Amino acid sequence: MFEPPLQRVIDELARLPGIGLKTAQRLAFHLLHVEEADAVRLGESIIELRRLVSLCGRCFNVTAEQECTICRDLRRDPAIVCVVERAQDIAVIERTGEFDGRYHVLGGALSPIEGIRPDQLRVRELVARIDDEGIKEVVAATNPTVEGDATALYLARLLKPLGVTVTRLASGLPVGGDLDYADEITLGRALAGRREL
Amino acid sequence: MFEPPLQRVIDELARLPGIGLKTAQRLAFHLLHVEEADAVRLGESIIELRRLVSLCGRCFNVTAEQECTICRDLRRDPAIVCVVERAQDIAVIERTGEFDGRYHVLGGALSPIEGIRPDQLRVRELVARIDDEGIKEVVAATNPTVEGDATALYLARLLKPLGVTVTRLASGLPVGGDLDYADEITLGRALAGRREL
Repeated sequence: MFEPPLQRVIDELARLPGIGLKTAQRLAFHLLHVEEADAVRLGESIIELRRLVSLCGRCFNVTAEQECTICRDLRRDPAIVCVVERAQDIAVIERTGEFDGRYHVLGGALSPIEGIRPDQLRVRELVARIDDEGIKEVVAATNPTVEGDATALYLARLLKPLGVTVTRLASGLPVGGDLDYADEITLGRALAGRREL
Repeated sequence: MFEPPLQRVIDELARLPGIGLKTAQRLAFHLLHVEEADAVRLGESIIELRRLVSLCGRCFNVTAEQECTICRDLRRDPAIVCVVERAQDIAVIERTGEFDGRYHVLGGALSPIEGIRPDQLRVRELVARIDDEGIKEVVAATNPTVEGDATALYLARLLKPLGVTVTRLASGLPVGGDLDYADEITLGRALAGRREL
């Protein structure tokens, strides 16, 4: 349809998640009209990304080194590990400033519907770390979804016999929220998890 | 926040139109997890785009040569030129199979609000083509917006004294549409432009 080099960019962009053919066309034409240096910088940054960034050998976080900055930080408590579904979840938890242990990226959550079983997640690697690093507590910070809850429960059953405390992030009302707008499941969990003041 | 090479990709992606920081993060993490060859192919296609594709010296369409495939096509009628706002509009008109003249990409539409004046569009280049190529009709295919209409009117006033017929794409009801859903301005134009059967 378009000139081959242009069509190629459109096709490659359209393979990205959430980018349809129309958006890919719009982006490709945008790249044709910006400063050439800007377009080249985008292209190079994508190529460099894969050359420079890989996954931490310990926790599977994103890193430019053998191990990620968090695993290499000696001030972090190695006895407590926060298990997340995806590497990008780490940044969200780090931003709270409330956690000073290490992480473990599972690579997803259990899902019978999508056919995701424990051996497709990094569960074996987590179990190996329990002994190696003397982990005492695992915080299951998987998403508060059916899949995330099931994964947390699975981890609890698997790790408790190893003498590890498995905890779960609290579910409840979002801070600044409004009771009126809370769904009944969230409100139910907020009630069940109520604390004495 | 993230490792520098990752943050760089996020920043570059977030500069694209319609891509916010959140989407940029999602895309960057996606690129970290796909096959390395796929990520590299995207990066290279973007760099190649600017090396291989430029604008047609005659009509400012996108081309990998000195002139675009349409300008080089001897079967196209050089006496009729379709003026569009952007190069991507050419593909839309070509898809109808109803136009066999050449094109001219203005590079936008007149807009006093956004400060776009005739000297910021490729109007001078269009006027130069009238004589050079013996153009008899200019189809103003700018968008059916206030700016596009104003641009079409401006071109009509400018080019009529040169002996050129300036025409405008018909406004009216979209084919397959429903009277109930037509806005009053479109319906008004459909009435004003009614034809005898």
